[in-house]
Amino acid sequence: MTLRVVGIDPGLTRCGLAVVDVEPNRKVTLVDVSVAGTPPGTPLDRRLLTIAEAIDAWLERHRPDVLAIERVFSAVSVTTVIGTAQASGVVITAAARRGIPVAMHTPTEVKAAVTGSGQANKNSVGKMVAKICRLDSPPKPADAADAVALAIAHAWRGAAVGSNASASAGRVGSTQLTTAQQAWIAAEASAKRRGTGR
Amino acid sequence: MTLRVVGIDPGLTRCGLAVVDVEPNRKVTLVDVSVAGTPPGTPLDRRLLTIAEAIDAWLERHRPDVLAIERVFSAVSVTTVIGTAQASGVVITAAARRGIPVAMHTPTEVKAAVTGSGQANKNSVGKMVAKICRLDSPPKPADAADAVALAIAHAWRGAAVGSNASASAGRVGSTQLTTAQQAWIAAEASAKRRGTGR
Repeated sequence: MTLRVVGIDPGLTRCGLAVVDVEPNRKVTLVDVSVAGTPPGTPLDRRLLTIAEAIDAWLERHRPDVLAIERVFSAVSVTTVIGTAQASGVVITAAARRGIPVAMHTPTEVKAAVTGSGQANKNSVGKMVAKICRLDSPPKPADAADAVALAIAHAWRGAAVGSNASASAGRVGSTQLTTAQQAWIAAEASAKRRGTGR
Repeated sequence: MTLRVVGIDPGLTRCGLAVVDVEPNRKVTLVDVSVAGTPPGTPLDRRLLTIAEAIDAWLERHRPDVLAIERVFSAVSVTTVIGTAQASGVVITAAARRGIPVAMHTPTEVKAAVTGSGQANKNSVGKMVAKICRLDSPPKPADAADAVALAIAHAWRGAAVGSNASASAGRVGSTQLTTAQQAWIAAEASAKRRGTGR
């Protein structure tokens, strides 16, 4: 029983898109990773349409059980935050149209899940992503690696919640867990009991 | 030659939607006005999907020449700004998918265009909207009136630019002006020369 997670690092210039398959024993396989976007200065409607078309194609191709996306908050400049929020709105809507549950995680949660430290830098996150996915080097650019980290973090954090899936933090979806998710969580709990969990 | 403008006041709780037809002599007819949204506390994916479905239906029904939307900026709380930006991203994408040009205007520009003062309050804007559209009372709630004001302001500001349409401030679209827009601007300039302009 494998959980397929799409991870999205939203943005207008470089929106990271990732797909991982995660097994109940927490083994992660990177299925696909990419970056979509347009240069700054491109008209906003064209920028948002590019993101919309990329995420639509991504979800159509990979049919995930869940979509994990970085929670937007006002860290840097307000201009950047607004563009990132607009892109995230488009991504979340694309998932909602398909009935795919959406989960949001903060960068700190993601860093903590994959490196053990919420303060890890981009370089450390990339290295851990490569290690976890058994790659020779981190996915490039950093936005792609961040999207993979998000997907991994979501699967591992969901697993940490065990069978009490409704308590999963950061869940924004109104839909129920999919059958695949429920089965995955049950299988993960069972793997843990057998001592085969990571 | 009539210009049909959809005006959108973006938001998750109350997203104002308006359609006006504007003639070259600046006469405005309110075609339709509505509000879409969900209560705070509704899961975000459900909230955004509600906005997406409302704007899709609105554009399908009214087939505007242009969509005018309030420019999102960080005025109030960051939380509100992010939700508003997410909703605006969904609206702009819906227009872009249909090849409808998108224009953005700040609240100050809109207030100035319809009341003569960029500092006008909601009450004054509502009253002027009612007067301009020859209604007995302002559209309710205020978000609906704001959407109508946006649509009026866009048409009137566009006209002020005369035939130099490419100089229209706040335009974000990558598409060219529609034939209807070009013809409208030419007709408006002609009406002005004849002294029939407002």
